[in-house]
Amino acid sequence: MKYLHCMIRVRDLAQSLDFYENKLGLKLVRHKDYEQGQFSLYYFATALGEPEIELTYNWDNRTYSPGTNFGHLAFRVDNIYDVCARLAQQGVPILRPPRDGHMAFIKDPNQISIELLQAGDALAPAEPWVSMPNVGTW
Amino acid sequence: MKYLHCMIRVRDLAQSLDFYENKLGLKLVRHKDYEQGQFSLYYFATALGEPEIELTYNWDNRTYSPGTNFGHLAFRVDNIYDVCARLAQQGVPILRPPRDGHMAFIKDPNQISIELLQAGDALAPAEPWVSMPNVGTW
Repeated sequence: MKYLHCMIRVRDLAQSLDFYENKLGLKLVRHKDYEQGQFSLYYFATALGEPEIELTYNWDNRTYSPGTNFGHLAFRVDNIYDVCARLAQQGVPILRPPRDGHMAFIKDPNQISIELLQAGDALAPAEPWVSMPNVGTW
Repeated sequence: MKYLHCMIRVRDLAQSLDFYENKLGLKLVRHKDYEQGQFSLYYFATALGEPEIELTYNWDNRTYSPGTNFGHLAFRVDNIYDVCARLAQQGVPILRPPRDGHMAFIKDPNQISIELLQAGDALAPAEPWVSMPNVGTW
């Protein structure tokens, strides 16, 4: 298991990139634009290989409040099915089941969203996850 | 500069410790109780020496909303006076000036609170910081 990043949502991309890179002084590690989803992700760190700050920029220029500017904490896991099965057995709702063998979302007891990401390639789609609907928001 | 932690506020300490340790499976690295401030800090990580998840538990059992459950991102800096002077010169308000030579708070353009912590021992108190008042919240 590895702590990957802390995600925050940014409204003004240029202003936010300037802040994290030129003012706070973090290193921009990489970024990717997602045409289909209409958003971009920017990853900053103070040291390569360590957990990062992920900035999510939605192209529709939506606004955020103090309740939505913080996104989630993300962790890489060795087997997302095993982890989700254990969590469910422990009473943690799997809000976004790993239908794709790649990604799941849960929440901590304080309503902090937590993303789980499969290490390496996605696992082959499998039940009960494939048929499991989303629950609530994350 | 080093990314130290992402702080979140927890209402039910036992429930939150159980979640992060026994359910999510993070390692509890250390914790400290602050009698004077009436709060406790718990630090979790997936690898020693890497950025941590800091849980803040206030003993008065106050409640949090999605706007206050996420606290801040924290970074260690080599010279907190130099960093704050540069940030101020770049137009970033120093909301909590480093009057103690140890800690400062700013906000990113998205109202995300950012804590700056002096590496090693606190610097000797110095102007203009000693006389600088707090501004707003962080």
